[in-house]
Amino acid sequence: MSRARSLGLACGKLPPGQLNLISDVPGVSVGHTTLVDGDVRTGVTAIRPHQGDVFRDRPVAAAHVLNGFGKSIGLMQVEELGQIETPILLTNTLSVGTCGTALIRRAIAENPRIGRQTSTVNPVVCECNDGYLNDIQALAVTEAHALAALDAAGTEFAVGAVGAGTGMSCFGFKGGVGSASRRLTLDGAAFHLGTLVLANFGRAGDLRLPDGRRVAPPNQAAPPEHGSVIVIVATDIPLEHRQLHRVIRRAGAGLARLGSFYGHGSGDVFLGFTTANRTPHDATSDVLPMLAIAESRIDLLFEAVADATQEAVLDALAAAPDTTGRAGQRRFGLAGAL
Amino acid sequence: MSRARSLGLACGKLPPGQLNLISDVPGVSVGHTTLVDGDVRTGVTAIRPHQGDVFRDRPVAAAHVLNGFGKSIGLMQVEELGQIETPILLTNTLSVGTCGTALIRRAIAENPRIGRQTSTVNPVVCECNDGYLNDIQALAVTEAHALAALDAAGTEFAVGAVGAGTGMSCFGFKGGVGSASRRLTLDGAAFHLGTLVLANFGRAGDLRLPDGRRVAPPNQAAPPEHGSVIVIVATDIPLEHRQLHRVIRRAGAGLARLGSFYGHGSGDVFLGFTTANRTPHDATSDVLPMLAIAESRIDLLFEAVADATQEAVLDALAAAPDTTGRAGQRRFGLAGAL
Amino acid sequence: MSRARSLGLACGKLPPGQLNLISDVPGVSVGHTTLVDGDVRTGVTAIRPHQGDVFRDRPVAAAHVLNGFGKSIGLMQVEELGQIETPILLTNTLSVGTCGTALIRRAIAENPRIGRQTSTVNPVVCECNDGYLNDIQALAVTEAHALAALDAAGTEFAVGAVGAGTGMSCFGFKGGVGSASRRLTLDGAAFHLGTLVLANFGRAGDLRLPDGRRVAPPNQAAPPEHGSVIVIVATDIPLEHRQLHRVIRRAGAGLARLGSFYGHGSGDVFLGFTTANRTPHDATSDVLPMLAIAESRIDLLFEAVADATQEAVLDALAAAPDTTGRAGQRRFGLAGAL
Amino acid sequence: MSRARSLGLACGKLPPGQLNLISDVPGVSVGHTTLVDGDVRTGVTAIRPHQGDVFRDRPVAAAHVLNGFGKSIGLMQVEELGQIETPILLTNTLSVGTCGTALIRRAIAENPRIGRQTSTVNPVVCECNDGYLNDIQALAVTEAHALAALDAAGTEFAVGAVGAGTGMSCFGFKGGVGSASRRLTLDGAAFHLGTLVLANFGRAGDLRLPDGRRVAPPNQAAPPEHGSVIVIVATDIPLEHRQLHRVIRRAGAGLARLGSFYGHGSGDVFLGFTTANRTPHDATSDVLPMLAIAESRIDLLFEAVADATQEAVLDALAAAPDTTGRAGQRRFGLAGAL
Repeated sequence: MSRARSLGLACGKLPPGQLNLISDVPGVSVGHTTLVDGDVRTGVTAIRPHQGDVFRDRPVAAAHVLNGFGKSIGLMQVEELGQIETPILLTNTLSVGTCGTALIRRAIAENPRIGRQTSTVNPVVCECNDGYLNDIQALAVTEAHALAALDAAGTEFAVGAVGAGTGMSCFGFKGGVGSASRRLTLDGAAFHLGTLVLANFGRAGDLRLPDGRRVAPPNQAAPPEHGSVIVIVATDIPLEHRQLHRVIRRAGAGLARLGSFYGHGSGDVFLGFTTANRTPHDATSDVLPMLAIAESRIDLLFEAVADATQEAVLDALAAAPDTTGRAGQRRFGLAGAL
Repeated sequence: MSRARSLGLACGKLPPGQLNLISDVPGVSVGHTTLVDGDVRTGVTAIRPHQGDVFRDRPVAAAHVLNGFGKSIGLMQVEELGQIETPILLTNTLSVGTCGTALIRRAIAENPRIGRQTSTVNPVVCECNDGYLNDIQALAVTEAHALAALDAAGTEFAVGAVGAGTGMSCFGFKGGVGSASRRLTLDGAAFHLGTLVLANFGRAGDLRLPDGRRVAPPNQAAPPEHGSVIVIVATDIPLEHRQLHRVIRRAGAGLARLGSFYGHGSGDVFLGFTTANRTPHDATSDVLPMLAIAESRIDLLFEAVADATQEAVLDALAAAPDTTGRAGQRRFGLAGAL
Repeated sequence: MSRARSLGLACGKLPPGQLNLISDVPGVSVGHTTLVDGDVRTGVTAIRPHQGDVFRDRPVAAAHVLNGFGKSIGLMQVEELGQIETPILLTNTLSVGTCGTALIRRAIAENPRIGRQTSTVNPVVCECNDGYLNDIQALAVTEAHALAALDAAGTEFAVGAVGAGTGMSCFGFKGGVGSASRRLTLDGAAFHLGTLVLANFGRAGDLRLPDGRRVAPPNQAAPPEHGSVIVIVATDIPLEHRQLHRVIRRAGAGLARLGSFYGHGSGDVFLGFTTANRTPHDATSDVLPMLAIAESRIDLLFEAVADATQEAVLDALAAAPDTTGRAGQRRFGLAGAL
Repeated sequence: MSRARSLGLACGKLPPGQLNLISDVPGVSVGHTTLVDGDVRTGVTAIRPHQGDVFRDRPVAAAHVLNGFGKSIGLMQVEELGQIETPILLTNTLSVGTCGTALIRRAIAENPRIGRQTSTVNPVVCECNDGYLNDIQALAVTEAHALAALDAAGTEFAVGAVGAGTGMSCFGFKGGVGSASRRLTLDGAAFHLGTLVLANFGRAGDLRLPDGRRVAPPNQAAPPEHGSVIVIVATDIPLEHRQLHRVIRRAGAGLARLGSFYGHGSGDVFLGFTTANRTPHDATSDVLPMLAIAESRIDLLFEAVADATQEAVLDALAAAPDTTGRAGQRRFGLAGAL
């Protein structure tokens, strides 16, 4: 499996983490379910923010919609309460409901008081439309597939045409799932910020590499009807919700450097969390301590999220091979075009 | 079935439409699926904005989140594109995914090009938590139930403990679905604005009637863990998206007059559409004509939506009878307490 | 001077603070400059969040625009950075620029590095249109008037037709400045939340008192072309920006209980701060501790801000006497109409 | 005076308008007041959306705040009402109040009913901090300077270190005012979209040219404490407010291509208007016709605004010469570094 860096496509000046994956943020893990069968090219990718019960121990979170032509669920409550209470699932556009129901059933299984003695649960599922390569009408993703992705989560995981990225396209090439991380220093201590993207956006011919080259796929004739890109941002740096919201907005700079102008048909959605501030489901005092970065230092994270978003998209492109899908439609891998 | 007006609970000075229902807006219809079985007290309510294919003929729409502790889906795209492309479904919190998938399947059945030769579809489903009276963990709502509500839609429809309102609570009383409408005159012609609410909010003891009386249920001991209220606003007055957004925000004034302070646990969500401006799925010219109200006249709609929201909640309360649900838990009807 | 409570117009169940003024929040003080001369009926009101240098010691703050038909300045940065860095001034619509410049000059005098060795400064000025009673075209407010209001700030201050409230109207009565506070208990300790309103909104005939009575002024013939209401919220309860934003939004419930439907022409703007979380201009470490309320307790503040906003408006109405202004135009005091 | 294109710095594939200035949009004109005296390096730039009375004939407008560390005024009402009612002024951060008051006085002179028989007026002034080259504490801009810029407006105007751009810096080079335009075809007819930027943002060393080269100034040692960039977008393509808001957001893509990650200290504000939809101050009917682009064609404008923003910044850099300002501090022109 190629990575962005193995093809010479590093972005920015900040050093990557050890794996250059979102799982360089301690506690974060990722799992995939990949479905390839007949005209089906789709799947599910799960991001677990920590190894505990997310319903009981909720990371501070924020969501930003750069372009809302999309069908993600759960973001409204993330913005109101500033936290997530389930792992995050990524999948194709028409499987959002099924994945949401799977997250609900899993949360109830782990917390039988949900909806009876305590509140309900807010599943978070983001999506892109893989209908060019995948028979999206087949609604092939089941609740079992969603749970399998959750159960497969680990700190080392595949990128490219896997999980939710199986059928995605990007700048006319084969897209998919990519990831990157950056190591940052605050008050002399090491922290990390990582990104994971579901890359399914960009007009063929518009892709620009970090060195300024433009690269186009051989078969530009068939643009996707609709694109989209999901950017998941994780960090162990302490942030309050407002600060985290500011940080994830900078993912848009990373997309623009790649050649995107945030097209009309592209649902561009950013979702971030920090493991350094967590809210217990049942607080035992009325006032809780938390930590926040000194705002004068926040440019460090802005730069990191722009760089790591740009690189994560290139990582998805670097790892995804030539792929033939529904009705014989094809996407070429970027690696072969360099 | 009692209505708000039959109990003397009219709101405001503007005249109601003929039925005093959201269906006084020409073309709008409503249908219910009601589920009462063992500990199950739930259902689905469908609002169809017009009698045609909503995917191909899209009313201008807007969504406003007054308090985002809720799990509604589809609102992100409504705000980006200013339109709805499916009918609207209301249901319980944990059935949103199932109802969304039902809307997708119905849209594909009617438009087989979806997800293949054209874009996907954005299902709109709003919810409240009926877990006090309903065994919400049972996930009793099926796709067939959702489609049955769509197929049952008509201009005359029941209010109270029906459809999505079957298990809802409001100010400690039995809540449910309510509706109201107002007749408005612009340039000498008659128009309508109608509301439909799914009322599941409010602290026992806080309810205030239009004449200033406060009314409390006999059993105030058991507040719902979580409330919520959905307000659907329909009109045939021409509005652009920005104007419609302004109009629906005033639903919050109606809720506050009833005694709500928009509690932390209440997902207060407003969704509106106008049948007077529609966007075709396939536009045949690059520039399209539309109509907008002169902004200096918009106070007429602000007043109407505040009044009709207030009255629609009272309508739900007026029509809903004493109800025993899950684990023998009870809600009394307002009518018996007046 | 009448107060709301001396006329029997208390709101809600929570106990008021000692003065029932925003200055019950420790450290908060208020000052007025009142201008009555010929056809001029206007002024400036200053709210100081604490007794120190606000530029160097910045309270966490949030702003919410319920209806943006207004000309307040400084709110954009408040929302981005979640803090204020000057005291808050209230004045008439056309004097915002002058008051802003006055805040800038005062900040530079106190911090000569501004704009040279450090950042510039963000003045916060909110406004209502007092043109019915005041010759607003006269632009009578000077920078000296603004500074005089700042210098006059104390914990005991007049309400009614004073300061920025001198020429305001409300529900067809004489409006002005009003205030209220509530005492709240968290973890067994006493805290306060206070409001100060600049009340210049509401249609004659729509005012509803806490007991349900409607009251109209004798001369309903002359509605103001444009209203507006500013609500300032102060507290010493620890809140992060997101929580404070949620809290101040509930001011809208207080306005609606009074009979407002947030009219088109009314700039309805809410601005809040907490003295319990402050950001130093020059942080000496990269990560800072802060405190936040447990979200499950936040309803206490929601109720308090709705009640205290409602009562502060009644306080302005209670204290303002019959007033004749520009061109002999009159507003009657509420006290005479009860 | 160099322009971006005379230095080979064209952006994108769409053709420019005749002058490659915002004034290629019919009716739009621009004027400057430039102040260079002792340590003063500042000024005012005025953008007039059409040649008539803007208070009586209001273009549809929208504002978007990408990073709100800024002090622009008037944007709140632009977003609520979707229109501008004065010309737009650009100036330095501390002169916003003075320029706002100048716009008010000019509007009253032209419409003596303002604030007496009709509403007040909403001045729109945007700003950047030119304190590195300019003695910003001098508050050198007067109301007369603001009016002079308005009166100087024409379709041919200077770019670079003029008007509000006199003292600005950009990527460590001398910044200033730049402009660009694109010619677009809809339904076979020609339209234009133009941008004007006040460019005062970007970290030295981060600038990237359209061909991928990075360029740094010789003296990178002195970064500005605070940056900011204002992007004004004009078009004669019919758009409703929501669509215009979508269009101007894409200015952020243009900024990111240049190397910006939207730094913490940079107030990044976008303001757009269309001359094709105008609202009369006194509407004579309750319902008004308007036009809107078919949403499926809106990518054309997205691409144009991204390209024209990128090029307008390069235009400011290309035209601005080496400049010495306050305390002998220097900025080099980009032209000498290529």
